[in-house]
Parts: sequence; structure tokens; C-alpha cells
Amino acid sequence: MNTIGNKFVFTSFGESHGRAIGGVLDGVDAGVRIDLALIRQALDVRSGRTSTVGVSARAQNERDEVEWLSGVLPDPEHEGQLISEGTPIAFIIRNTDARPQDYEWLRHHLRSAHADYTYEHKYGIRDVRGGGRASARETVSRVVAGSIAQMLLRARGVQIRARVIQIGDETDSRQWETLLADVQRQGDSVGGIVECTITGLPIGLGEPVFDKLQSHLAYAMMSINGCKGFEYGTGFDMTHRGSELYHDVPCPASGGIEGGLSNGLPLVFRCAFKPAASIAREGHPRGRHDACIALRAVGVVEAMSALVIRNFWG
Amino acid sequence: MNTIGNKFVFTSFGESHGRAIGGVLDGVDAGVRIDLALIRQALDVRSGRTSTVGVSARAQNERDEVEWLSGVLPDPEHEGQLISEGTPIAFIIRNTDARPQDYEWLRHHLRSAHADYTYEHKYGIRDVRGGGRASARETVSRVVAGSIAQMLLRARGVQIRARVIQIGDETDSRQWETLLADVQRQGDSVGGIVECTITGLPIGLGEPVFDKLQSHLAYAMMSINGCKGFEYGTGFDMTHRGSELYHDVPCPASGGIEGGLSNGLPLVFRCAFKPAASIAREGHPRGRHDACIALRAVGVVEAMSALVIRNFWG
Amino acid sequence: MNTIGNKFVFTSFGESHGRAIGGVLDGVDAGVRIDLALIRQALDVRSGRTSTVGVSARAQNERDEVEWLSGVLPDPEHEGQLISEGTPIAFIIRNTDARPQDYEWLRHHLRSAHADYTYEHKYGIRDVRGGGRASARETVSRVVAGSIAQMLLRARGVQIRARVIQIGDETDSRQWETLLADVQRQGDSVGGIVECTITGLPIGLGEPVFDKLQSHLAYAMMSINGCKGFEYGTGFDMTHRGSELYHDVPCPASGGIEGGLSNGLPLVFRCAFKPAASIAREGHPRGRHDACIALRAVGVVEAMSALVIRNFWG
Amino acid sequence: MNTIGNKFVFTSFGESHGRAIGGVLDGVDAGVRIDLALIRQALDVRSGRTSTVGVSARAQNERDEVEWLSGVLPDPEHEGQLISEGTPIAFIIRNTDARPQDYEWLRHHLRSAHADYTYEHKYGIRDVRGGGRASARETVSRVVAGSIAQMLLRARGVQIRARVIQIGDETDSRQWETLLADVQRQGDSVGGIVECTITGLPIGLGEPVFDKLQSHLAYAMMSINGCKGFEYGTGFDMTHRGSELYHDVPCPASGGIEGGLSNGLPLVFRCAFKPAASIAREGHPRGRHDACIALRAVGVVEAMSALVIRNFWG
Repeated sequence: MNTIGNKFVFTSFGESHGRAIGGVLDGVDAGVRIDLALIRQALDVRSGRTSTVGVSARAQNERDEVEWLSGVLPDPEHEGQLISEGTPIAFIIRNTDARPQDYEWLRHHLRSAHADYTYEHKYGIRDVRGGGRASARETVSRVVAGSIAQMLLRARGVQIRARVIQIGDETDSRQWETLLADVQRQGDSVGGIVECTITGLPIGLGEPVFDKLQSHLAYAMMSINGCKGFEYGTGFDMTHRGSELYHDVPCPASGGIEGGLSNGLPLVFRCAFKPAASIAREGHPRGRHDACIALRAVGVVEAMSALVIRNFWG
Repeated sequence: MNTIGNKFVFTSFGESHGRAIGGVLDGVDAGVRIDLALIRQALDVRSGRTSTVGVSARAQNERDEVEWLSGVLPDPEHEGQLISEGTPIAFIIRNTDARPQDYEWLRHHLRSAHADYTYEHKYGIRDVRGGGRASARETVSRVVAGSIAQMLLRARGVQIRARVIQIGDETDSRQWETLLADVQRQGDSVGGIVECTITGLPIGLGEPVFDKLQSHLAYAMMSINGCKGFEYGTGFDMTHRGSELYHDVPCPASGGIEGGLSNGLPLVFRCAFKPAASIAREGHPRGRHDACIALRAVGVVEAMSALVIRNFWG
Repeated sequence: MNTIGNKFVFTSFGESHGRAIGGVLDGVDAGVRIDLALIRQALDVRSGRTSTVGVSARAQNERDEVEWLSGVLPDPEHEGQLISEGTPIAFIIRNTDARPQDYEWLRHHLRSAHADYTYEHKYGIRDVRGGGRASARETVSRVVAGSIAQMLLRARGVQIRARVIQIGDETDSRQWETLLADVQRQGDSVGGIVECTITGLPIGLGEPVFDKLQSHLAYAMMSINGCKGFEYGTGFDMTHRGSELYHDVPCPASGGIEGGLSNGLPLVFRCAFKPAASIAREGHPRGRHDACIALRAVGVVEAMSALVIRNFWG
Repeated sequence: MNTIGNKFVFTSFGESHGRAIGGVLDGVDAGVRIDLALIRQALDVRSGRTSTVGVSARAQNERDEVEWLSGVLPDPEHEGQLISEGTPIAFIIRNTDARPQDYEWLRHHLRSAHADYTYEHKYGIRDVRGGGRASARETVSRVVAGSIAQMLLRARGVQIRARVIQIGDETDSRQWETLLADVQRQGDSVGGIVECTITGLPIGLGEPVFDKLQSHLAYAMMSINGCKGFEYGTGFDMTHRGSELYHDVPCPASGGIEGGLSNGLPLVFRCAFKPAASIAREGHPRGRHDACIALRAVGVVEAMSALVIRNFWG
């Protein structure tokens, strides 16, 4: 339920306004250097603090700080760095907004809390802490775990790079700043499309017939909040006929996967993100990264890609 | 690899031109009546023998006949019907085209066989029998298993119905017959989009945060040969703003899933199928169902949906 | 439920008096030669046709013949041999005693069939075909799959050898023939202990903390019908003190496993088999292998060991 | 690797002398009251602070204190109690002996650390913090998670009770105090046998043919440090013949499981624990619970039983 992977296994926990969110990452070899700067950078992209797509970053008061609970040792050779022990890496990021005195309030106001329709129906208890597991904050843990997976993959020559390619109807990135300013001013939100390119994969990654590479990528992407679609290669583009597409082997229109296995070409897929619901519902203006959640999803798409690829490539 | 599900578990086996293809379905309760006519009908749709979309069906010399190996008993009350025993249901469909004398030929011509680029690279052996596991024939097993899942779901009031909604660029179904005739005449192929609607689901099916309902559906659909994209709700349509979409709870634009869980509205998703490669490559004309594999994929989409839903709804 | 392993995956199906029993083995590399003689031999040991422990084998009218459904090709270089394709290997062994006309009888006598207490309670349907999945006949499939695993392990220098070391209270094998004759004459049954020795394992096989090597071996052995106990190293022998046991590293008293991982010494474990229930209940005399099911379990213990080891050593 | 269960899923993390050990428990329904006193008591038994077997408890300076990270809320109705949210319950127990300044030492003395033979071979890095994951301290997390499982099972009328029934060769509990004092005086260690009885189970828990109840119990018990054997029912006792055992249905000699499924009788199994290695090796005297690790294993056996039963009984 809250675990993904079977060889490289990530378990996520924590509610958005609880004490902490965190994760456990099992399957990291011993002796791997953990690049804390890379994790720092990925977290800043996710939080909207750093922008990678030419859209102004939002100000934010506090940064997510990772606290390591297990599985890592101080690197004896590099001051301030960590090295993996081969045991499960557990970490948390404290939710600094959560205050103990809030709990007093809970005793008397349990019924008036915000609630998610389906969660409440399923669990019979509303997660009173403000969205709970369904919140986008849960993705912080994914970014930490995915960054570690990316470190392992880089050592093998794999590069994973995601970017926004469309905001609303607009594919020209020079228009995005204006578009987002407009959306933001109206307290509205807009959807977007993220494209991810993975290079350096060996040929043959994936397993027929159910554990195809695209199956696991789609599974992982659709688990990201707000993701409503996944496509690779020609995807939903129906303008081509077969005769145009298959002149070469491996096939450039393949998106990097044939028969469920990587074919050595760059793997390219796209994810559709819907306009955020919370803005429209709550009506209060937010930063540009909230006006289009695809902007913040970029790092999560990379993280989930890395977890999937690393799990296949044990 | 060749198994899907963890509570309702389907294992698929068999090469397209080997002796037989088949499957094992574990998790079917004892005492369930197996509706052989429903399975017959689903197999005819898959093979292109029966058309469900207003496109002429192709002639075909032989039907797929299911041979039951285990897990079912003759129904003592209904002549010619079967009843499940609660043990794994194993079945095969023989490949009637496979002939023993072909094996003689193999000893001397192993190298000249057709081969799939990625498979050959991964396995180091070409599946000499003509496409092997990567062939669309493997979906016969899925249809049989999925039909049993559908029987179980119907008893709970769930209806799963897929249909083609677009062929090539054309969404007007009255134009499809002409379009396909044209494509077929040119020995070409064209893509298509299948939409699947599931009604009667309870609220709350699915599991946060990785085992979301849409994650498992996407996983299953992307495992179908030729499927290049999956979307639900607003999907890749980027024309809307958040303010238009979220007036009601549950949300009609949701596609039937909110927060990873079914919300009681009809679940609607779409799958993109690419133009078939084999036609363009081999150049010989085939029937209309081969000119657009989406037509034959309809039953497979329903079957995989049923396996996913039944696995969630143990 | 009927599947074991996650990388080397075996699925078992078939009822003891149904049409066939069989299995699907997923994870066998392409190009492996299948030694049919080894499978033949293992099946003969299991059926009691061949004796490996100095106890007279029983006569038996028919042999179990394996029918290969998928995953194997005729070896182009060796007449009458098979070679794996890298796809799931499916096989069946027909139950030659099963006769179609028996089904007529079922319609009228469903209620009078033999039934297993717990199965009937769980499934609500009695497996009218004589024991169904709970029957020892199900182990035929395990022996076939395990034999293939053994072939793969032998190529890596691993030898798995099980033998009976105790029958009833008797550990002196020279007394067994007489003991069994006596038990058999009385229409009774007696328990036995099987010891299995695995040599040639690399150091470090197994995974902390739950997927220890002994955990998976115990899991697999306890799934064999009639197995009531598993121990390795000093096991239930409580005569030693710590000071006697740990002079050397690796430790000879370890049974070949330390900290859940193989330590390079021969791995030695023992399984306790109870006296068979069916004989005592039904009262009719059978052969000596039925008087002590441990004799027939030898090959099943080897087969299950091979499946476990191969799954760990992907 | 560090995860057990598929519906009621427990993930364990933390090294014995790292910052903390902990776990994540997924699958706990929302609204369950967490009995902190029960967890307190189970931890005291595990640490040897509380004795349940008539053997003097050892003094110990500090208690294990559980810190809850996620998945629980303050119970609005009961001061100082917790209630589950339905999300993953994450918790840690800090290792109070671990001191940051130890890390300085590590930089210069990495090579001289204690190391476990197989771990070092497998991971290539010695867990410098004193035993790491292989340490018995890891079982603290199991006890916390297992206690929660026990709470859930008690609500369904299931009682799980383990006790030591043999220490060394001695089965008379009145002799244990003297025996242990003697062993302890010699700086030696001795093995022991723990028997666990589970009452209140429904009939039919378990799954044929691999996921038998005894298979999962054996798997879980063999994962406990020092456990060398598992048996149920007649187990390794070979004194009986079949004719003595099977007069009644369900069978009293069955140990509560027939055909892999619970039969409604009390489920009784036994685990053999070896003499602790560390004492004999290191030679320094310790408390009586260290002289016989079976004494401390009692709570771990109960905890692992509860995890297994709860996972089957979703």
C-alpha cells in the first residue's frame, strides 16, 4: 500500500501535518556515498524554492531538512558526508508547522475538520491534520528516496531529466510567465504536462509480459498526486500511420521501449497533471508553483522514475 | 514477470506458435458457476470474429477452444456447465497451427528465424516459433482469465464496458468503415483509442499512496501490446482551469477516482493504441481488425480491468 | 497461495484426481538444457518406484509422464532433449486414473464424497475428486520444477542431497526394512526424519532480517504434506552449552547459516514427517513407502530446497 | 528483505548502536485504540526487565521508550492514549547508548571494529556500530509492531501466549533458577525451547499449498535471532504410530493445523533457541536472560505470531 518495489523497496509514511513524514529505503548496497547536496537541490525544486523551468520561484520560509535515522554512517573520509551501510535507510523530515497545542483543539473540534470525500468514506476517520497522506507533502519522502536511486543510477551512466513542456494550452515556454501570473491573479489553477527523458539505459530492461518497463513507469507516475495521464512514444497522438513509423530498428517512434523492454534509445514519456483542486476550492491566492502543480511535479517524476529503473536494474 | 495480482492472481504462459498458450487463475472462490458462453463471446471479439464496434468482422478459419486442466468441476446441476472448486483454475488453448514436423526444420534453420530486437538482446535466443510471448496471441489467456473475473464482478453489480472511440484522427464512427478499408488497401495500419467505463464500484476501492486504483489500471493497460498511453478524467486535455472543474463533490471531472480511491461515479479511462508494426513491416494485407489493433484490444482492456478490480476487491 | 518465489517463480495447479496436475515455472534463463532423465529419476523416487534408502521399492503400474506445454524447444543439437526459451515453462502430468464416466456418478452422489475437515469448512465445497490439492500427488509438480532448479544449481557447483535418517524411533538403517514390514503388516504408519545437505553454496546467500535463508527453507519445507518440524544446526538438541559450540569461525555447529546468511560450510537441515493419516484411517494395507511418507518425501525436500536456493541466487 | 507481510505489512529498520531502531506498520485500520501499557509490558519482557517464567529479572538502567512518528493521533476521548489513523504507523526507539562522539573514533579505527563473518563477506563493510541489524536489539521493533497486531487480534477473541518449557536439558521449571545461576557463573550460555499457544482462531485460516499457516509461522519464527528449529503438533517426536494419532476429527495431535489450515483447536508450536554465541565468545558474565536467550525470546515469539496471524486474517 505504502511500499513500492520488490528489490529496491521504498516505504513511505507520515501525514502532512503530523509530526513528521519519512521513508525507509531497503536495497541500497553498502558503501555508497550519499550526496546530500543533490538531495538538498531536489527538495528545493519540489518545494518551489528553486525553479528549473524559467518560472519565478516562490518565497518560502523554511526548508525541508532530512534527519537520518538508520542505514547511514558518517563517511570517515569526507567530513559532513554519509555512506550507506547496506541496511535499510530510514529518514524523516519534521513538519515544523505542526504544534503540540493543536492537539488540544482536536479534542473538541474533531467534526469540523477538513476531510477528503473518499478517504473519509474508506477510513471512517477524517485525517484531522489537514489532508494527511493524500497531501502533496507526502512527495517529499519520494524525492529523498528517489534522489538516492538517482545517485546509484548515475554511477552506471544513467541520466534522468524531467521538464515541463506545456502549461495549460501553451507549449511556448516564453508565454508561461504571463499565463501563470494571470492564473494566479484569478486565484485559479491550470494543468500542465511533464516530459521525462532517460538516457544511458542498457538494452533489455523490463520483464514480459506484465512487468513491462512502461507498466511500472505508468504505475509509478499515476501514483503522483494530480497525475491524470501517462504516455510514451507516439502516445495519444493518432496522426501517424504504421508505414511512417517503422522504418528503423530500433524504432525512433518507440519512445525507447519495444516489447516491454528498453531498446537502447532515449526513453521518453509524458505525464499529464490536472489543475490543482485546492486553489479553486479554497479561493485564496498562492504562488505560481501552486497555480500549476506540474512545475513542482518535475522532481517527483524524476524521483519515481529512478525508483522504478533501479528496482528493475538490481 | 508473467503473473499479475496478489490476491486474485493470474499467471500467463505459452508462446504464440508453441504447443499451447494458457494460464493459471488463483483466488477464485469455490462454487462459482463458469459461464462458458461469456468466455466464448469474449474470445470471438478478441480474435476479430465478432465485431462490437460497427466494423465488419474478419473471417477466420478456427476458433480458440479452451481446455480446462484444473480448478473446475462439471456443474452437477447444469449439463455442460462448470463450477469452480476454489483451487487454481488452469486452462490452455492449443495453437492448432503448430505442427510437429516444424521442429525438424528448426534444427537446421535456427538462425534464419524472425526475431524481435529487444527479446533477442535480452534472451540470447530468438523465439523461433514466431513472436513468442511478445505476440498478441498471448492476450487470449488474459481474456479467459478476465472473463472469469468479470463473472465474479457482475455478481456484485459491476459492469465493465470498453469501446473504440477514435480510429486514427477520426472520432466519427460513421467514417471508420471507409477509413479502415482505405488503410487496409494500402497494407498500412492506423492507431486507435479505446475508452473503458466501469459502473457499480463501491466507494473507496484502491489504496494510498502507491497502490492507487489508477496506478494499477495504468500498469495493467500498459502491459497490453501496442498500448502507448493511459489517461482518466481530464487526462491530457489541458483546456480547462481548476475553477471550471471542481464545483461538485464527488467531482464529475474526476474520472471516478479521487485520491487514488473510487468515488462512486462511473470510472472512465482511455487507452491509446499505436498502429500495428507487423503490417507495415511485412507488407501483406490483412483484415480490418489488424489494420487497427484497438478494435481487437477492446476485450483485452475489459479483461485486464476486471483482473485489477477483482484483485482490489478481494 | 499456490505460487512460491519472487524471482524464480513456481505456480502449482491441479487436483489429485482431476484431469491433470501441473505447474508453471517462471524465471528460467533461455538456453538451459533440460535433463529429462534427471526429472524421470526424481519422479520415480517420489512415486516410490525407485528407492534411495535401502528400503524395497513398491511396484506401481504407471509412471508419471511430463507433458511440456510451453517454454521449451526441442534441442536442435541433441535428439530427444529440450532447451529452455526464457519464457514460462508450463507442464502437466495427466492423472491417468481419472475417468470421464466418474463424472456421471458425481451428479447424484456429491454428498457422499470423502472430505477434508478444514477444506470443507473453508471452501464450502468438498473436492469430490479424492483429496484435491491437499493430496500428496500435488508434490509431483514440485518435483518437476525443483528438478529444473537443481539443474541450474548444479551448473554452479551446488549439490543438494536429502536422505532419511530415522524411521519411527529407529536411527539404525539396518533395522528399517524389518520395522517397515511390521508397520505395513499392521496396516499402520510411522513417522520419519529427512536430513538434507547442500554443498557448494557461496557465502552470503540470504537476506536480513526477515528473508533469512533458514526462514525461506523452513517456509518451503513446512509446506510439504506431513512435515511437522524443521531444524538446522543444533536445532532442538539442547544438550550443548555455548562454550562447546563456538570455537571456530565459521562455526561447524551453525548448520551452514549464520546471521541468516550461508557461511560457506555445508548447509544441513532436518525435517520431521508424521505418520501418514490415510493409512490408519482407511485401514487397508499399502506399500512400504506409504507406511512411512518420509521415504517418498526425500525428493520433495530436495526439490523445494532447490526452488528456495535458486530464488535467492537469481 | 526487512519487510514481512503483504496485507498487514511491517518494515523494520535501525542498527543496534545507531541513532535509533524503528519500524513502519502498514495495514492498521483507522480508529483502533493503541494500548500503550501493553506495549510497555511487552518491551519490558523483551529487555529482561520483567520476567514471566519464574526466573529473576535482571536490573537494567534504562527503558525502551517508543516515539510515534506517524499514523496515530491523540485519542480525543482518553487522555494519554493514541488512536490509529489508518495510515502507516511509524515509530522509533532511540538507542540512548549511542553517543555522537563515538563517530570521531570511527574515522580512525574503522578496521578494528567487531564484525560478523557473513555480514562482512556479503556487505564488504563492517557495521561498526556493534552488531548492526544482526543484533537482538532489532527485535524491539518487532515487539512494538507485534503488540499492535495482538491488540487487533484480542478484539477478535484471539489469545497468543508463549512460555519457556525447557532450559538446556531441563524441563522442570523448579530447577531453572539453579541451572541458570550455574551457567551464568561460568560465563556460559544454554539453549531453551519456547512453546506458543494460540486460541480463538477461526477454522480455515491459511492458504494451500504454499501459504500454509505453519509455513508462515515457521518462516517468521526462524527469522528470530538464535532460533534453530520450529515444530508443531507431534513435531520431531517419533514415538507414535499413525493408529494412535487419528481417532478424532479434528485431530488433537494436529497442533491446531490440518492441511495447512487452522482446525479450530488450540494452535501449539515450539521454537528451539540455541545458546547465545556472544557470551561464550566474549567471556564476560551477564544476566540470566542473556545466559538463555529463550527467556527474552518469549515476547518476540508472541509478536511474530501476531504479525503472521493478523496478516492472514485481513
